[in-house]
Amino acid sequence: MSLLVTGSIGIDTVETPHGRVEDVLGGSSVYFSLAASLFADVRLIGVVGDDFDMDMLAPLRARRIDTRGVEVRPGSRTFRWHGKYTGAMNDAETVGVELNVLAEHGAAVPPEFADSEYIFLANTHPALQREFARQFREARLIVADTMNLWIEKEPDELRRLLAVVHGLVLNEAEARLLTGYPNLTVAGLEILKMGPRFVVIKKGEHGSLLISHEDLCVIPAYPTQRTIDPTGCGDTFAGAMMGYLAAADRHDPDTLRSAMARGSVVASFVIESFSVDALSTVSSADVESRLEELKRIARFD
Amino acid sequence: MSLLVTGSIGIDTVETPHGRVEDVLGGSSVYFSLAASLFADVRLIGVVGDDFDMDMLAPLRARRIDTRGVEVRPGSRTFRWHGKYTGAMNDAETVGVELNVLAEHGAAVPPEFADSEYIFLANTHPALQREFARQFREARLIVADTMNLWIEKEPDELRRLLAVVHGLVLNEAEARLLTGYPNLTVAGLEILKMGPRFVVIKKGEHGSLLISHEDLCVIPAYPTQRTIDPTGCGDTFAGAMMGYLAAADRHDPDTLRSAMARGSVVASFVIESFSVDALSTVSSADVESRLEELKRIARFD
Repeated sequence: MSLLVTGSIGIDTVETPHGRVEDVLGGSSVYFSLAASLFADVRLIGVVGDDFDMDMLAPLRARRIDTRGVEVRPGSRTFRWHGKYTGAMNDAETVGVELNVLAEHGAAVPPEFADSEYIFLANTHPALQREFARQFREARLIVADTMNLWIEKEPDELRRLLAVVHGLVLNEAEARLLTGYPNLTVAGLEILKMGPRFVVIKKGEHGSLLISHEDLCVIPAYPTQRTIDPTGCGDTFAGAMMGYLAAADRHDPDTLRSAMARGSVVASFVIESFSVDALSTVSSADVESRLEELKRIARFD
Repeated sequence: MSLLVTGSIGIDTVETPHGRVEDVLGGSSVYFSLAASLFADVRLIGVVGDDFDMDMLAPLRARRIDTRGVEVRPGSRTFRWHGKYTGAMNDAETVGVELNVLAEHGAAVPPEFADSEYIFLANTHPALQREFARQFREARLIVADTMNLWIEKEPDELRRLLAVVHGLVLNEAEARLLTGYPNLTVAGLEILKMGPRFVVIKKGEHGSLLISHEDLCVIPAYPTQRTIDPTGCGDTFAGAMMGYLAAADRHDPDTLRSAMARGSVVASFVIESFSVDALSTVSSADVESRLEELKRIARFD
């Protein structure tokens, strides 16, 4: 099944205890689509400015990601983010951010993408996300991400979005902020009351938690020993998860669990390099091998 | 097999968002032995002052824990701790602490405990822990806990202890502090170089990690929705783990994994009440039922 993602395409500068990279490819929809393309055909919608070198999207084209939905907007500048990770690298400190084209109107849905059945709304203003969701009323699965900014600044718009999506993916701090409950299981159940049929709470190095009316599940992170740059891990997790669901064309509890396990594994490759370096080169066989290892690691009687 | 624990017996005052209790039973060896007694015969060594009401140990006697190693020291006062938890309750803030009898010499090993084969050295000064370990050279398994205080103040004594124990149990912040590595898998492997054959890193609500030369394993926490008071969770985890190992009389990788899963489950009961209230009343059937649920929660393909 066709998987469509809309989200940011960015130019990143990232500092971690292991080094620094400048003006590299980033953005939620970029990580998402590279990860998803390991499992499914991916359609990408996003906007860049005329400062963007389209050759930077070569890794996406190499994965046969359909980039016809990438709009180059004349006179606008591309989204830029400068982040810094320290210590255990669980949280990025934003050194600088230029929203640029992201502060303008969203991208159009090309007619050839209108039949997309699996939709992922990467983090952006919830009103924009809802406007996208509205264009895919017939979709089999619409899942959104969000962030603390919208939870705090646009709570009403976020509630309206949650009423129309099937799933929500967010991190543990965001789940607590959105609900006011520190206990993540309780927070997840509260989010279900806002509309989604399932919630996936990402816990970074501690894995992820699935909460739905039918299921409760924990999936560990793959314990890589090489944590170089966590940028894009959450989007990568979501990409592999949605790619697996689109390929299976199901989202019953067992399939969701399997999808999250793929998310864990693919995210573990991203963290081992800067930008999309590792994600661009990882193979399905690499993923499969690490998945088998994750199963052994998580097994107990 | 006989399981011996030595550690603190305390009188606690605890505040959490759910209430406050004053002068209740606490201490590492108390939580440990109650949890361990669900699986094995437990021998307890500890010291209290003459201010201690021995009737407070009734829950331990009800579980047939051998308290002949509890010394009441005339003229001394019992260890007291006053802690406060806020927010997600992952860390306690110590409002007040009186070491009292814990600052004096350790307890003696009663002759009838000398044949103990499984030994747990709950957190105390590493020199005292080593002195205990020395008295059980023939033990099948000696496992220690420690804390940030000793890692920072007594690094040399701690290294000497680590050279003589088979296993170390500590939390994630302590593992990072001890090794200087933020990545927990790397930290665990570093600790193995210091002597232990296995390391268990406790991650609170995020479960635990086993690292040995033969194995790497993650066990989720049981996702209880009622987090009332986390005091003693780590000691409870270690107690159930060691109790299971002593009962099985094995500590191969698969048995260690099973033991940690029991640790997760029993700790999930402790957090649901203040002090040892829930731990005193939980039955083996309760544990077994929640264990089956944990297996379902952690399953994926």
